[in-house]
Amino acid sequence: MENGSSTAVRWGFQGNKGLSKASAITIRGILNEVMENIDKADPRPIIPLGHGDPSAFPCFRTTPFAEDAIADAVRSAKFNGYSPTVGILPARRAIAEYLSKDLPYKLSPDDVYLTIGCTQAIEVMLTVLARPNANILLPRPGFPLYEARAAFSHLEVRHYDLLPEKGWEVDLDAVEALADENTVAMAIINPGNPCGNVFTYQHLKQVAKTARKLGILVIADEVYDHLTFGSNPFVPMGVFGSIAPVITVGSISKRWIVPVDCIKGFLNISADPATFIQGAIPQILEKTKDDFFSKIVNVLREAADICYYGIKEIPCISCPSKPEGSMFVMVKLNLSLLEDIKDDIDFSFKLAKEESVIVLPGVAVGLKNWLRITFAIEPSSLEEGLGRIKAFYQRHAKKQ
Amino acid sequence: MENGSSTAVRWGFQGNKGLSKASAITIRGILNEVMENIDKADPRPIIPLGHGDPSAFPCFRTTPFAEDAIADAVRSAKFNGYSPTVGILPARRAIAEYLSKDLPYKLSPDDVYLTIGCTQAIEVMLTVLARPNANILLPRPGFPLYEARAAFSHLEVRHYDLLPEKGWEVDLDAVEALADENTVAMAIINPGNPCGNVFTYQHLKQVAKTARKLGILVIADEVYDHLTFGSNPFVPMGVFGSIAPVITVGSISKRWIVPVDCIKGFLNISADPATFIQGAIPQILEKTKDDFFSKIVNVLREAADICYYGIKEIPCISCPSKPEGSMFVMVKLNLSLLEDIKDDIDFSFKLAKEESVIVLPGVAVGLKNWLRITFAIEPSSLEEGLGRIKAFYQRHAKKQ
Repeated sequence: MENGSSTAVRWGFQGNKGLSKASAITIRGILNEVMENIDKADPRPIIPLGHGDPSAFPCFRTTPFAEDAIADAVRSAKFNGYSPTVGILPARRAIAEYLSKDLPYKLSPDDVYLTIGCTQAIEVMLTVLARPNANILLPRPGFPLYEARAAFSHLEVRHYDLLPEKGWEVDLDAVEALADENTVAMAIINPGNPCGNVFTYQHLKQVAKTARKLGILVIADEVYDHLTFGSNPFVPMGVFGSIAPVITVGSISKRWIVPVDCIKGFLNISADPATFIQGAIPQILEKTKDDFFSKIVNVLREAADICYYGIKEIPCISCPSKPEGSMFVMVKLNLSLLEDIKDDIDFSFKLAKEESVIVLPGVAVGLKNWLRITFAIEPSSLEEGLGRIKAFYQRHAKKQ
Repeated sequence: MENGSSTAVRWGFQGNKGLSKASAITIRGILNEVMENIDKADPRPIIPLGHGDPSAFPCFRTTPFAEDAIADAVRSAKFNGYSPTVGILPARRAIAEYLSKDLPYKLSPDDVYLTIGCTQAIEVMLTVLARPNANILLPRPGFPLYEARAAFSHLEVRHYDLLPEKGWEVDLDAVEALADENTVAMAIINPGNPCGNVFTYQHLKQVAKTARKLGILVIADEVYDHLTFGSNPFVPMGVFGSIAPVITVGSISKRWIVPVDCIKGFLNISADPATFIQGAIPQILEKTKDDFFSKIVNVLREAADICYYGIKEIPCISCPSKPEGSMFVMVKLNLSLLEDIKDDIDFSFKLAKEESVIVLPGVAVGLKNWLRITFAIEPSSLEEGLGRIKAFYQRHAKKQ
C-alpha cells in the first residue's frame, strides 16, 4: 500500500519537475492512461466504471430548476461583473441557511466562502495551512488531489488507514500515533470516496474528540453529503464543531464553510466562480424539491445493489462491505486466482483493451491491487459491464 | 516608485504571512480600503472611477448572443459534466480559428488552453515558469496580480519602467540591463492597463527582438485586445511568434494560447472553467456581430475624450498622453499644488470621504503619487465625477 500514497508526496517535493508527476497520479490522469488501452476495433460501447461524473447519463440529469436558475441569472444581467472574492452575499446567505438546517447552531453568511468547486476549496485550504515543517493527516485510500495539492504546497502528508474490516472507519489509533506538534489538520471524506461508506454519528464524534485531543483542525470533505442510501444516515461533521474546529468542503452547491481568516488573502489572488452561477444558487437551493434528490438516491441504491451482488459473481474481486454512500465501491483484487495479471494497473489496462470496460486502479487512490468501481451509471450498462468483467476473469483465471 | 512594486515581492517571500499582505496590494484589496472612507451621510451617488468592471453600466451590457449562448448550453444538458483539463475541443477549436484571423499563421486547438479568466492564466503561467533562482521582468506601472502570484511562487520580480514621455512604451534598455541567465520571461500588457496606451507594430517587433536576444519568453497580456479607439491599431504579439516564443493570455472569451507542456500537469490539479460556459464559446464567437464591439468602442472613445479634457481642467493632476485603449488612464499627482494631501493614498481616501468618488492610488499599480482613473462608466457619471474631483482640488489647493 505504501507505493500509491507515499509516491505522491515524494514526487511533490521535487518541485515543478515533481508537479507534473504528482498530477499524473490524479484520477483523471490515470483514467486517461487506462482509456488509451481501449481497442477501437471493439464494436461494443465503452462502459465507464472509473469516472466520478454521472451527469452524462439521462437518469442522473440535473433538475430543470438548476438549469432555469442559471439561465435566469445570465439573462438578468445582474451577475455579469466581478464578485467579491468571498462570493456574493445572497449566495452565501442562502447556503448558510441551507446548511444550518442540519446543524445544532446557525451559520452566518460570513462562515461561507464560495470557490470553484471542491477542487479550489482543497487548493485554498492546503495552501493556507502550509507552514514550514507542517504536516497533514490524510486517509488511505483517499482522494489524490489532496496529496498533489499538499505536495505542491510542500505540506508533508502522513497517511492513516481506513479499515475495510470496520466498514472503512478511520484508524484513530494510527491518527494519534502519526500526529505531532507540527500536525495542522486531518482530513476525512464522508460519505466515502472511494470506499462508499458512511460514518456513524458515534464514529464522527470520536474523530472530533481525537482532533480536540491533538489540537488539530478537521477538514470534512462532504461532497457526497446528499448521496447516502444505506443504514447510516449522513451526519455533517459540523455537528461536532463545538468539540473541535471543523472546516467543511462541499460541492453540490459549490460550497464550503470555514472560519479561517487568511483564506481571504489567498482568495484575493485566486480566480472566482462565475458570478452568474453564484447568482443562481439561491434559486437552486430554494426550488429543488426533495423528490429530485430521492429519485437520484433511489437510482444509486439500485445501482449499488446490482454492483454489490454482481461483484459476488466474480471470484477474483471482493468488496468488504456494501456501499452506502457516494457512487463508488473499492474491491480487492485476488491476483492468486489470475493467470497473467501483474497488478491493479495491469488488470485495468487489459480489461480496457479486451472488454472496453474502464475501472480505476486502486493505486490511484492509495490502495495497490484494489480497484475503484463506479456504479453511478445506467443500471443496464452497469450489469453489462459487470458481465464483461466476469468474462474477463474467466479468460484469465488460473487453470486448476 | 520603489515602494508599490518592490514591496509586493518582498512581502511574498515571507510565505503565508506575506501572502495576505501581498494580496492586500491587489487592486480589489486597495479599492475596498478606499471604499471604507466613503461618507454614508453623503446623499450623492458614489462615482466609481477605480474599478475595471464596466458590466454594471447599461451602456456596457454584454450582447444578448452571449446570454443566449450560455442559456442554451445550460439547457442542452450536454455540458453538465467535467471537462478535459485543457478545455473542451469545440471551444478550443473555435478560439483557435477566431485568433488565427489576426495572425500570419494558423493556431491549432492544441495551442489553446481554457482557464478561469486571465487570473488563472496568470497563476498557471507564473507557477510553471517558477524555478529556483528564476526571475521575471514585469512592467511598472503594471497589474499587481503578477507580483502577488510571482511572490507566491517564489519567482523573483524585476521591474522595467514604462516611459510616460514615450506614450508608455517599454524601456527596452532597462529590459536588457535587468535580464540575466536566470530570466525566464518578460510580461507586457497591451492595450495597456493601467496606462491606456496601445503599442505600435514597430515597438512590439522591437520587444520581440529584445526577447530573442535575451532568449526569454514574452507573456503578452491582451485582455483588452478589442478595446482600442485611438490612432494605433491593436497588433497581437503573436504576429511576432516567429521572432521569439510568445504566450498570449486573454479573457474576452476566457482564452489563452501557449505551447508549453507542463502546463497540462498543473491544470490537472487546478479547477476548470464551468463546462457549460466552455460549451457556449463557439456560439459567442460566431454570433457576436462587429456592431456590438464598435458600439462599445465608441462609448469608450467618447468617455476617453471626456476624461482627457476633464483632467486638463484640474491643475493638480495631469496625464502624459490621451488614452487609446483599455479603460484606464494614469494621471500624475502634483502634490506641490495641494495644501494637505500627503500622497496618492491620502488623496484617494480623502476624495472618497469628501466627494464619494473612488479612484485607485497609483501605488497599487507600482507608481507612487499617481492615480489610475477608469473611464468605463456612463459618460454622464464620468463628467459628474471629474467635476467633484475639481471641487476637491479647489478646496485643498495651496493658497497663493
